Amino acid sequence: MYSHTTQIRVHYALTDQMGFVYHGHYAQFFEIARGEAIRNLGFTYKELEAMGVIMPVVDLHTRFLRPVRYDELINVTVTLREIPLHHKVEFHSEVHDSSGALCASGSVTLYFMEAATMKRTTMPQALVEVITPYFAAL
Amino acid sequence: MYSHTTQIRVHYALTDQMGFVYHGHYAQFFEIARGEAIRNLGFTYKELEAMGVIMPVVDLHTRFLRPVRYDELINVTVTLREIPLHHKVEFHSEVHDSSGALCASGSVTLYFMEAATMKRTTMPQALVEVITPYFAAL
Amino acid sequence: MYSHTTQIRVHYALTDQMGFVYHGHYAQFFEIARGEAIRNLGFTYKELEAMGVIMPVVDLHTRFLRPVRYDELINVTVTLREIPLHHKVEFHSEVHDSSGALCASGSVTLYFMEAATMKRTTMPQALVEVITPYFAAL
Amino acid sequence: MYSHTTQIRVHYALTDQMGFVYHGHYAQFFEIARGEAIRNLGFTYKELEAMGVIMPVVDLHTRFLRPVRYDELINVTVTLREIPLHHKVEFHSEVHDSSGALCASGSVTLYFMEAATMKRTTMPQALVEVITPYFAAL
Repeated sequence: MYSHTTQIRVHYALTDQMGFVYHGHYAQFFEIARGEAIRNLGFTYKELEAMGVIMPVVDLHTRFLRPVRYDELINVTVTLREIPLHHKVEFHSEVHDSSGALCASGSVTLYFMEAATMKRTTMPQALVEVITPYFAAL
Repeated sequence: MYSHTTQIRVHYALTDQMGFVYHGHYAQFFEIARGEAIRNLGFTYKELEAMGVIMPVVDLHTRFLRPVRYDELINVTVTLREIPLHHKVEFHSEVHDSSGALCASGSVTLYFMEAATMKRTTMPQALVEVITPYFAAL
Repeated sequence: MYSHTTQIRVHYALTDQMGFVYHGHYAQFFEIARGEAIRNLGFTYKELEAMGVIMPVVDLHTRFLRPVRYDELINVTVTLREIPLHHKVEFHSEVHDSSGALCASGSVTLYFMEAATMKRTTMPQALVEVITPYFAAL
Repeated sequence: MYSHTTQIRVHYALTDQMGFVYHGHYAQFFEIARGEAIRNLGFTYKELEAMGVIMPVVDLHTRFLRPVRYDELINVTVTLREIPLHHKVEFHSEVHDSSGALCASGSVTLYFMEAATMKRTTMPQALVEVITPYFAAL
């Protein structure tokens, strides 16, 4: 299992007139935290794209438990429970507020695709190498 | 069953550098179409809020099947399969491109809540009345 | 002079907790209306990009006079006062609410650039032809 | 003069299909940096709203000099050149990329308003006190 937490400060543009973060914007929290989780492995999604691989999101599921408000400093935890097989990878995400309460949880499934052909591919070797140690057999 | 379709033109701000609509923005497509579906019943979500009722989204699930591109004229269909009981309502959404291909499908669950108390409530009577005819027994 | 007006319904995602449209989102109103103004000439910005020309925004100025609220049906008028010379074009925009009150005005300057080289270019001939009649000497 | 710099990592949602940050999103960079500049004074905009004062943006001007790309770590500097008089305050902003190049500059004018009455007011005393030392006569 590989897990990484990123702190995000909620800015005004993310709120709506209900006084909370607009539900559609949680996808951005997950994206930011996913990017930082990959960076923490010594790799970046930007490098992946430079290698000709893109990762479109094919499935997004979010449960909203407690509203998140302007200026809150949230913790967004991204977890990879299984080493990706084939062309598909699923990340689980949790948003906690500064008191530690769970505000939202989500799962995001992405495909590895070759940008040039728009064909499915597998996880690039460079990423396999940095991620495998987290899933090593005991 | 009640179903309503809204046409939306995809503008530039919704795209990302992959060249498609950013996955997080489909929530806005669903929101726009849901609002128009309610308006088509002779009611608006704005009036609901003026009555002191808000409808936060508690669950959002989207499957992305084909990318949607800049300037496409998409059809977003919102369907209410069951008359809402208690405090919860679930809308199903489908996004079709101009060729008729299914690009995305989603389900959005919302609660009816009193804005003043943040307590769950039931669907306001004014909305029950306009929606019931669509679910009348044959 | 060439002028074109587009109606836009304000959806929830555009509001912030102040209860109005977030100021940063007016750029999208201007972009949508600019795109429709070009389409009305029998041309689209999408075709321009397909021809290898992109139009990055180099200057944006907006004055906010009255707040725009959720569900308002605004009229966004885009005006081209002068036929673009060289690589630069400036559009003026006004946002009126449904009562006719002026809510915001703006000006947006864009460059014509070759996407391949990122060098400045001039307005493509196809666009010159459809736009010139609006500026013909009397 | 009071000046404060905030680092922001550019996430994917902010890009558009041109491959750069969408011009309308710079308003969010300025807003984030403005919020952090106020926090750095030992005060927050959130507290201001809790005191019944809101600060709507009445004028926004941005010049875009160089594109900002996905994953760049930009520095957004907010400067207050004069102590606000009456109901109006103007912030100047600059966006530099990680190489130090100036990518955009902007100015944002906001009003101090009472949320309850939507009438103009002056800068709250608590904010005057923390900001005055930066403008003290030599």
